[in-house]
Amino acid sequence: MIKRYLLAPGPTPVPPEVLLAMAQPVIHHRAPEFAQLFGEVREELKWLFQTANDVLILAASGTGGMEGAVSNFLSPGDRALVVNGGKFGERWGKLCKTFGVQVTEIKVEWGQAVDPQQVADALKKDPTIKAVYVQASETSTGVAHDVRALAEVVRPLEGTILVVDAITALGVFDLQTDAWGLDVVVTGSQKALMLPPGLAFVSVSEKAWTLADKARNAAFYFNFKKERESQVKNQTAYTPAVSLILGLRAVLKMLKAEGLAEVFGRQARLAHAMREGVKAAGLALFPKQSPSDALTAVCAPEGVDGQAIYKNLRVQYGITAAGGQDHLKGKIFRISHMGYADTFDIITAMAAIEMVLKGLGYPVTLGRGVAKAQELLMVKG
Amino acid sequence: MIKRYLLAPGPTPVPPEVLLAMAQPVIHHRAPEFAQLFGEVREELKWLFQTANDVLILAASGTGGMEGAVSNFLSPGDRALVVNGGKFGERWGKLCKTFGVQVTEIKVEWGQAVDPQQVADALKKDPTIKAVYVQASETSTGVAHDVRALAEVVRPLEGTILVVDAITALGVFDLQTDAWGLDVVVTGSQKALMLPPGLAFVSVSEKAWTLADKARNAAFYFNFKKERESQVKNQTAYTPAVSLILGLRAVLKMLKAEGLAEVFGRQARLAHAMREGVKAAGLALFPKQSPSDALTAVCAPEGVDGQAIYKNLRVQYGITAAGGQDHLKGKIFRISHMGYADTFDIITAMAAIEMVLKGLGYPVTLGRGVAKAQELLMVKG
Repeated sequence: MIKRYLLAPGPTPVPPEVLLAMAQPVIHHRAPEFAQLFGEVREELKWLFQTANDVLILAASGTGGMEGAVSNFLSPGDRALVVNGGKFGERWGKLCKTFGVQVTEIKVEWGQAVDPQQVADALKKDPTIKAVYVQASETSTGVAHDVRALAEVVRPLEGTILVVDAITALGVFDLQTDAWGLDVVVTGSQKALMLPPGLAFVSVSEKAWTLADKARNAAFYFNFKKERESQVKNQTAYTPAVSLILGLRAVLKMLKAEGLAEVFGRQARLAHAMREGVKAAGLALFPKQSPSDALTAVCAPEGVDGQAIYKNLRVQYGITAAGGQDHLKGKIFRISHMGYADTFDIITAMAAIEMVLKGLGYPVTLGRGVAKAQELLMVKG
Repeated sequence: MIKRYLLAPGPTPVPPEVLLAMAQPVIHHRAPEFAQLFGEVREELKWLFQTANDVLILAASGTGGMEGAVSNFLSPGDRALVVNGGKFGERWGKLCKTFGVQVTEIKVEWGQAVDPQQVADALKKDPTIKAVYVQASETSTGVAHDVRALAEVVRPLEGTILVVDAITALGVFDLQTDAWGLDVVVTGSQKALMLPPGLAFVSVSEKAWTLADKARNAAFYFNFKKERESQVKNQTAYTPAVSLILGLRAVLKMLKAEGLAEVFGRQARLAHAMREGVKAAGLALFPKQSPSDALTAVCAPEGVDGQAIYKNLRVQYGITAAGGQDHLKGKIFRISHMGYADTFDIITAMAAIEMVLKGLGYPVTLGRGVAKAQELLMVKG
C-alpha cells in the first residue's frame, strides 16, 4: 500500500469539503436553484479576479478559455504579439495560427521571463497589433512573466488588449485585473481553484468587448458574447458542468474565509520554502529569474535523468510530480504547491526528492533540504 | 488554511475508497443483499483474525466488545486475573468490578510489559481464576504485552481463558488467534481497520464458549451467544451499523490485496522509523521495553510540557496526536502510525515534532530526526 500524493501542476488536490459539495445531487441548470448558485459564484469570482468585469464560466479545460480568448477578439488576418517562453506561450501561437491570426512572436529562452521593454518595442514597431498574449505563470518552466509591467505598456494603446493566461497564476499570487488593466484573464478549475478539471474562467474588460464586436472568427461553443448575454441572467448558453459549479461555490467560500492576501501569503511562503529547500539540498532551480509561486522547476543534477526522478517519485513514493516538456524532458522536474497545499506538502516533496536522489546514487544529504523548509515554515509563537 | 492530519491512536485516517464505500445507499439489514455482505465480511474477518472461530461484529466501540468479553464469560463472584499496565488494563479491572467479578490485578509499571512468569505464578497460586484479561497493545503507554507467551501459560489450563484487548494490535502486528490460543480477541473499527468508530469485533474460541454456557451475568445488547446464533445465519441480533459494514468490506479488500505479512511489515517499518527518528532528534521513547508498532509514545523533554507539544501540533500544524493520560499527562505525547499510514505520515510527524519543540525553545536540530526516518524508509532499487 502506498498513498497517492498529487503534487503535479494540475490537477491539484481537491479539499474534502469540495469533494463533498460536488457529491450533492445534480441540479437542473434551468431551475431557479441553479440561477441562484450561478449568481453567487459569478459574484465571488469577480472578487477572486479583482475585477468588476464579467467573469465567464465555461465547461472546458483552460485551453478552451485560451481558444475563446483568441477567436472572440481577433479576425483572420489580424496581428497579435505572442510571448513564447515555454510550452504554453507556444500554445498561444498555435491558437493564433489556427484562427488565421498573424503572429509576431517574442521568443523568450525557457527559464527566463520576458523583458517588458521588448514588448513595448514590438508594439511600437507594429501599431496594428490588436492583442498581446502572455502567461502570468509559464507552467512548463516555472517562470512568472511580469504582467503588471506588460499591462503598463499595453494599457495606453487604444486598439490593443492584453490577454493573460493565468491558469497557474490566479489564486496563487496577486493579479489585479482592473487596477493593472489586464483585459482578458483566463484560468482553469484544476489549479489554484482546487477543483477537478472541467471549468475555464475568462474575465473580459470593456476594451476587449469592443474588440469582440469587430471580430469575425468562427466561435460557436466558445462564443463569449453569447455567453455573456446568458450569464448576466445567471444562465449559460450551453449545458454547464453543474457539479463542478457546486464545488466552485465551496472553493470560493474557503478562499473567502482565508482571505485573498492570506492565500497569496501562504502560497508565497510555501513556494519560498520549497525553493530554499531545493537549494539547501544542493540542487539548482530551473528559472533564471522570476520564479512562479505556483510550482518549482528543479534542474536534474548532472548525471541524473530528470525523468527517472519523476518516475521514482511516483512509483516508489506515490508522488505524482511532473517532468520536463519538450527539450527539457529529462533535464528538469516540477513540483506544484498551488491550491490546497500546506507545510507538510512541502516537507513531503522535499523529503521524497532527497530520498529519490539518494536512491539514484546522487550524493545528497538526507534531511538538509527538509530542515531548510522546516526552518522557513515554522509557526512563530 | 491548515490541513488536518489525524495521527492520534484512533480514530485513524480512513482511505478514500473506504469513505466512498460508506457513502453507498444504506441497505436494509434484513434484505438478502445484507446477508450476502455480512457473510463476506465474516469470512474475511476470520482471515484477519487468523482464526476458524466466529468473529462477532457489534455496533459499538471497542469498549462494548470489552464489556461483552467480561459479561459473557464470567458470573458474579468468579475470579479473574487482570494485567494492568495502563489506562486500558485499568479498564478491564473496572469492567470486572461492574459485573461482580473478583479481580486479582497484576500492576505493571506504565511503560513496562508484563512478565509472563508473574501471570503463571498468579494462576498457579489461584487455580479458580477463570479468565486472564490483558492488552496486546496498551494504547496509553505504547507498550505491547507478549500475548503469545501469556497464551502458552493459559492454554494448558482447562478452565481458564485468555482475553486479549487487541484494539490497537489487530492488523498492526502478528496475532495468531488460533495457533497461539487466544481465546477471546477484541478489536474496534477506528484503529488499524481504517474505519470510523462504531464497530467492535470479538473472536471467541470453543473453550470460551464453554465458559459462556455457565456465565450468569446480565448481557442483553452484548449477548454473544444470541449474536452468534444470528451471525452464523449472516444476520445480527440487533440493527447493525450497515454503512460501516460496507466500509469494512472495502477495508478487508484492501488488506487482502496488500497481504497480511506485508501489512505487518509496513506497520513495523513505519514504527521503527518513527522510533529511530525520535531518538535521532534527541528524544526518549516512553516504553522501557517492547514498544507497540501501533503508536510511539515519546517523553516530553526536560522542561517542556507534553501537553504544549500536543496542543501546538494541533493548533500550529493541524496535527491531532495524543497527550499522556492520568499521571502521564504533560509527561508524554503519542503519535499513531497504525492503519492507513505510509512514509510521509512519519516524515510529517517527525518534522512537526521538531518544529514544535524548536518553537517551544527546546534546542532541537531541525531535520535530524527526519533524516533518520528518511534513511530507514528509503525504497531500495
